[in-house]
Amino acid sequence: MENIKILKKEVDSWIENYFLDKGCKYNKRIYEAMEYSIKAGGKRIRPILLLIVYSMYKKDYSKVLNMAASIEMIHTYSLIHDDLPAMDNDDLRRGKPTNHKVFGEAIGILAGDALLNEAMNIMFDYSVKNKQLGIEASMEISKAAGAEGMIAGQVVDILSENKSIPIEKLNYMHENKTGALIKASIKAGAILSNAPKEDINNFEKFGKKLGMAFQIRDDILDVVGNSKTLGKNVKSDEENHKTTFVTVYGLDKCNEMCEKLTKECLDILSNIGKNTGDLEKLTLFLLKREF
Amino acid sequence: MENIKILKKEVDSWIENYFLDKGCKYNKRIYEAMEYSIKAGGKRIRPILLLIVYSMYKKDYSKVLNMAASIEMIHTYSLIHDDLPAMDNDDLRRGKPTNHKVFGEAIGILAGDALLNEAMNIMFDYSVKNKQLGIEASMEISKAAGAEGMIAGQVVDILSENKSIPIEKLNYMHENKTGALIKASIKAGAILSNAPKEDINNFEKFGKKLGMAFQIRDDILDVVGNSKTLGKNVKSDEENHKTTFVTVYGLDKCNEMCEKLTKECLDILSNIGKNTGDLEKLTLFLLKREF
Repeated sequence: MENIKILKKEVDSWIENYFLDKGCKYNKRIYEAMEYSIKAGGKRIRPILLLIVYSMYKKDYSKVLNMAASIEMIHTYSLIHDDLPAMDNDDLRRGKPTNHKVFGEAIGILAGDALLNEAMNIMFDYSVKNKQLGIEASMEISKAAGAEGMIAGQVVDILSENKSIPIEKLNYMHENKTGALIKASIKAGAILSNAPKEDINNFEKFGKKLGMAFQIRDDILDVVGNSKTLGKNVKSDEENHKTTFVTVYGLDKCNEMCEKLTKECLDILSNIGKNTGDLEKLTLFLLKREF
Repeated sequence: MENIKILKKEVDSWIENYFLDKGCKYNKRIYEAMEYSIKAGGKRIRPILLLIVYSMYKKDYSKVLNMAASIEMIHTYSLIHDDLPAMDNDDLRRGKPTNHKVFGEAIGILAGDALLNEAMNIMFDYSVKNKQLGIEASMEISKAAGAEGMIAGQVVDILSENKSIPIEKLNYMHENKTGALIKASIKAGAILSNAPKEDINNFEKFGKKLGMAFQIRDDILDVVGNSKTLGKNVKSDEENHKTTFVTVYGLDKCNEMCEKLTKECLDILSNIGKNTGDLEKLTLFLLKREF
């Protein structure tokens, strides 16, 4: 996990630097709110995935740190909006008060908006200098975040509260809510590194399965996890009367599904003729994670 | 105004068509919410500005209708979020119940998010096929929408409620809240048409003044306007104890400022060696508008 830890540090310090000199006396507050949430200590899974895949083909991953960080901005915006009183109404995230608890609801909404917008600014900036691959990767990320991706999943989630939903719909929800951006992070890394088409197709399959395993593990942790380790309230799915993989399949079956998906992920990686060691390690880490 | 009316119809029908086949049974609701607000009958000033400027240099404006519409999506997302209970808490917009009144707060937030994201998708799509000018114009729009543009203005607005603010701050607020996206619409039209650098500089100056005149007129209409014609509640600035151009300068002086800015706008246009007739007409229309 040594390399993965280094990548995490690189992402953290890129983000740290990015916000250093942002804003003037009038709009400073919005950057404080954006910074608060993005620096609240996420695992940085999505940017790390992008960087690991990129590094399989190209040496200097520092060139795409901004693209990696833009995905973390999108992820963070989605968490800020998810936590709002009108949505999941959560007070705690990553062990800290949620954005709207600190900055108020209005600034919370705007901080989310601004993080999404900032991510797009960064992607356009990158694309000016790296037209073909930059735009292709950005489009992948932008589509995964939108109404046919993350937002689609979130809408189904919101509309399904207090309802029992069929498995097909649960799959659709999770494939989009969590899976889409995870898959896009992996694919964007491959696109940016100009990986062969065949490998990109394998990464797409890998990303889909990894995203699903990730979400099932999330559902499991919401039941058996420790709120201190997780940094957020547990049993929130139960409280919000949500259909989850656990309510449908039960814990044992969910653990089995996670293991099976992880194995399939590793199988796919074995088809890629590159050093996939770090990606294997991260895949196994996500299966066992407690937070 | 004949040409301007045609452009408005073109924008309306592009938007109409765009949403025709969007979504599946699971995420349909988000498109309904997006469509509801974007089809609630805006003036389409921003996309029309882009199209008028583009048409001064290039014949086939249908090629940039998607870029024009993407700005309207950004504008609409900002209105949906502005109207939320945590922000201005408005029940009425363009003569109809606001988005969250119809779809609930959670879907209102997501519909705003999705419109911003959709705009970015469209801009990336355009940029894939028109790399240099596409990205340049998109960046202009994206930056104008973000934490150094529209959102900056909105943040100052939110933080200044119930406070008297200095004129410099009021200028900063309006320059960003309304002005930035209006200026970007004009500049993007010029960039997309590959207009000469000198003209683009003139459009930048023109856009800045037009945006300011637009906002002063908005402040005037909030005091003297008719809520039926405007389609939204009047006297909302007073109710929210906001500092506006009217509270600082009074109505007479505001009317004078509007006329002066409009004259300056027309002067700038006279330096552009193209047929600026439609743009002059729109500038004069905005000065006199009652809604």
